[in-house]
Amino acid sequence: MIIDGKKEAAFLREELKKEISLIKDKTKKVPGLSVILIGDFAPSQIYVRNKEKNSKEVGINSQVIRYSKNVTETEILKKIKELNDNKDVSGILVQLPLPKQVNKEKIINAISPLKDVDGFHPTNVGNLASGYKSIVPCTPLGCLFLIKKIEKNLSGKHAVVLGRSNLNGKPMAQLLLKENCTVTITHSKTKNLKEECQKADILVAAVGIANLVKDD
Amino acid sequence: MIIDGKKEAAFLREELKKEISLIKDKTKKVPGLSVILIGDFAPSQIYVRNKEKNSKEVGINSQVIRYSKNVTETEILKKIKELNDNKDVSGILVQLPLPKQVNKEKIINAISPLKDVDGFHPTNVGNLASGYKSIVPCTPLGCLFLIKKIEKNLSGKHAVVLGRSNLNGKPMAQLLLKENCTVTITHSKTKNLKEECQKADILVAAVGIANLVKDD
Repeated sequence: MIIDGKKEAAFLREELKKEISLIKDKTKKVPGLSVILIGDFAPSQIYVRNKEKNSKEVGINSQVIRYSKNVTETEILKKIKELNDNKDVSGILVQLPLPKQVNKEKIINAISPLKDVDGFHPTNVGNLASGYKSIVPCTPLGCLFLIKKIEKNLSGKHAVVLGRSNLNGKPMAQLLLKENCTVTITHSKTKNLKEECQKADILVAAVGIANLVKDD
Repeated sequence: MIIDGKKEAAFLREELKKEISLIKDKTKKVPGLSVILIGDFAPSQIYVRNKEKNSKEVGINSQVIRYSKNVTETEILKKIKELNDNKDVSGILVQLPLPKQVNKEKIINAISPLKDVDGFHPTNVGNLASGYKSIVPCTPLGCLFLIKKIEKNLSGKHAVVLGRSNLNGKPMAQLLLKENCTVTITHSKTKNLKEECQKADILVAAVGIANLVKDD
């Protein structure tokens, strides 16, 4: 079965539009997303452009703050502090990857957990892992959303996650565990990867290699 | 193969004694552990007594703060704040389980992540899950320590963890993943538990049921 992801996304945006409209009525304020974009890495440019476009469509204020790839870590940290303190900014997103001189861990830790829309801050990661309320990374959350379009009740299913990145594989595993799946996390060091995958009721490929998963 | 846990523990305490002695020389201060114990639940009494005894043995100041089982949440939160601010307290441990009127999540969140010796604070859970430096819960850490006594290189091994509690199963899975194991997390909703377990190179029973794992 093939899910039409674009159709589902459009449907979701319609739902969000209504939800945001209610928030605006209630709070008399417009939610605002601030994106920090460093350098000119082409995929990042595309991601950020889509975030801007979709924010606009659902009625969120969107602001992109651009820096050259030579920006200092201090400058980014200063900007994050400013955004943390700015009441008009509801969400902050620093587009990854970062240039070498900017430490990813430091940057992620500097974002207020309450504004960390990517869900990468340790507080959000920890809350997700502990089963508490948290902001969840968008890719695994979207993936779970699509899986549940096909099968609502995942309890007891054997889910195999390919990849253990902090951005995708690990939060994906946490979400599937929360759905009461038996979860196997596989990665580059896994032996008998094919065999592990064949045991899966649900197989999630969360690695950046196209066509890694084949028919068999 | 059977590991003599008591012998390993004694050996570890000897090592810790030396390490703490070095810390004392360097900082001219004695590390201090404060334990909050509520009510008279027998296993908790034993755990805390052992923590006191072992702290003494390795040269740590140990203080047990006792409350009746009717204590209010506010009172415990006030005490935690006081301990967070007290420079002579290096570690804080609130012995679980808690009475009904005291919210576990609130209590754990109130402890400074830097003093959270149990490693239950979302910041520590998140840092562990993200592969960053963190305080790790003692039971899974001790378990990994014992596993590595038998087999130093766990890379590529298939580890099956029975149980997904925040205290044991989940951090155990994170630690094994960090060791490059392929990790399967099983729990009460898992189908074919026996079959899942039989595939394991390493099987960790992290559930409170004695003799759940049998020869087969």
